[in-house]
Amino acid sequence: MKKILIAGTVAFDEVTTPMGYSGKRLGGSATYLSFAASFFSEQIGIVSVVGNDFPETYLDKFRDRHIDIRGLEISADEKTFYWKGYYYENMNKRDTLVTQVNALEGFNPVVPENFRDADLVVLGNLHPAVQMMVLDQLTRKPELVILDTMNFWMENSLPELKQVLKKADVLMVNEEEIRQLTGEYFIADAVKSVYAMGPEYVIVKQGEYGSLLFTPEGMFSAPAYPVEKVYDPTGAGDTFAGGFVGHLSRYENISVGEMKNAMICGAGMASFNVEGFGTERLEQITLDDIFYRIRNFVEMTRFPMQEEMKLKDER
Amino acid sequence: MKKILIAGTVAFDEVTTPMGYSGKRLGGSATYLSFAASFFSEQIGIVSVVGNDFPETYLDKFRDRHIDIRGLEISADEKTFYWKGYYYENMNKRDTLVTQVNALEGFNPVVPENFRDADLVVLGNLHPAVQMMVLDQLTRKPELVILDTMNFWMENSLPELKQVLKKADVLMVNEEEIRQLTGEYFIADAVKSVYAMGPEYVIVKQGEYGSLLFTPEGMFSAPAYPVEKVYDPTGAGDTFAGGFVGHLSRYENISVGEMKNAMICGAGMASFNVEGFGTERLEQITLDDIFYRIRNFVEMTRFPMQEEMKLKDER
Repeated sequence: MKKILIAGTVAFDEVTTPMGYSGKRLGGSATYLSFAASFFSEQIGIVSVVGNDFPETYLDKFRDRHIDIRGLEISADEKTFYWKGYYYENMNKRDTLVTQVNALEGFNPVVPENFRDADLVVLGNLHPAVQMMVLDQLTRKPELVILDTMNFWMENSLPELKQVLKKADVLMVNEEEIRQLTGEYFIADAVKSVYAMGPEYVIVKQGEYGSLLFTPEGMFSAPAYPVEKVYDPTGAGDTFAGGFVGHLSRYENISVGEMKNAMICGAGMASFNVEGFGTERLEQITLDDIFYRIRNFVEMTRFPMQEEMKLKDER
Repeated sequence: MKKILIAGTVAFDEVTTPMGYSGKRLGGSATYLSFAASFFSEQIGIVSVVGNDFPETYLDKFRDRHIDIRGLEISADEKTFYWKGYYYENMNKRDTLVTQVNALEGFNPVVPENFRDADLVVLGNLHPAVQMMVLDQLTRKPELVILDTMNFWMENSLPELKQVLKKADVLMVNEEEIRQLTGEYFIADAVKSVYAMGPEYVIVKQGEYGSLLFTPEGMFSAPAYPVEKVYDPTGAGDTFAGGFVGHLSRYENISVGEMKNAMICGAGMASFNVEGFGTERLEQITLDDIFYRIRNFVEMTRFPMQEEMKLKDER
């Protein structure tokens, strides 16, 4: 079992989607990441900050999942980061109505002693300078540093982002973001350009259409699991990353094959997440639900030619 | 080897994409469909119409591929159907600049004697009443009727379209089209609604993201093959359908497994098509190119859990 360190936001979210209104509820990248990963591992620590308005019952949600919150600072003077959004019918498009940075302003992350030797590190969406401060506290080079980021940091903190990119093994971005980061329109060109910035692996998230993993050995396409109804896409990317890193934490040897499996686990976790508002579904599902879905998912991707070509190769 | 009958348009196309200008060139749904299928079969007949301005050299392109053009009417008084389009940077969006229906107006399709007992029938994008006239001339029920259509017919000829749907086994549409046809936003709901209209199988095309096959036994997700650069998406859907039906024509028994393989062949053919303007790439590639690409494609979709779960099932 590998130790997973997750840095990101813990927040209050409030969204309206075509399926309804979420209410003000627990959100943030570190929340989705750690909740999803908690189905796979009991050695997860988060680094984040909340404000003096953050309810104890929310802290219990982390504790109940055996997520180590010693790295979750509780600011005495500030309020919790708050985001309010509105999703259009095509839920790929959303507007931000309110962002209150609050306690996250000037956040000085402290990695707890027992997670400074983490094997797997996920840098969820945060200021790249804060992401770097997390890496700087590690006592050894992690096996894998997985980096998420967004357009906002490309526009406002590109030099810092480029520094973090140098230390990242896996970059996880959506199509729009990789285009903006590299200035390349075609994904194949953009990925080559990212390789030159540091990461050896690139995951391009395509929302409801799945995701692509680019590796030195070739690429892999993971579809999205087709859920019946999407209620709220908030946190889908973080949940994907949580399932991805959670799966990898169970294997001694992180091969490209295991990364492909991890993509499917990530997609499976994300598919649950969008079936409800906020963390609603992640709080309901069981390990059995996950096994069952991943089994269905695997069925959905299998076709006879895969087997035929393998047999031909073996002859 | 099964006989394939293809009804659709044979046209002059002229497009501008972010990658350049195509020039006025051979296009049309029956063209892309039959060109793609011709790599898999030598028993293909098309039903279409062109005008008196259609060059003999274009007819030779069909003959060279052993495509039977006895069902291709050459109108003495009319000109060939002409379409001019403009693609935006995101090539999922295009504007039609000019449509000249010409010879296609009042087209009265005649299925040649030797294709009235076709095993596989593809009704490419045409007026649904014309699609029905093709079916009405068949002397026996084909094994599979594959139906393509578009929003225009849903808006203007819905009753006729519903008649054809009753006779179709496979409906092939994109997401926008299936939403419009059924009034359902979520694809799972929309597919159920299509089942009630007739087809037993539904293929939902997602452009650059791949396609989904819905069957009574469950669904299958085929990614798109990631080409380096997209020059012109015109005809990608028809090329997909051509590869799909071409693959199926080689198998005695059309199982769901073979339909999954056919989806991959369709996606492979479509990936070539977008690499050049119009039929440019389809006219360059060889069978070896196709085998090589499909092999890569299969690699790209394989992950260890598929095998692990299969072994578990067998124990």
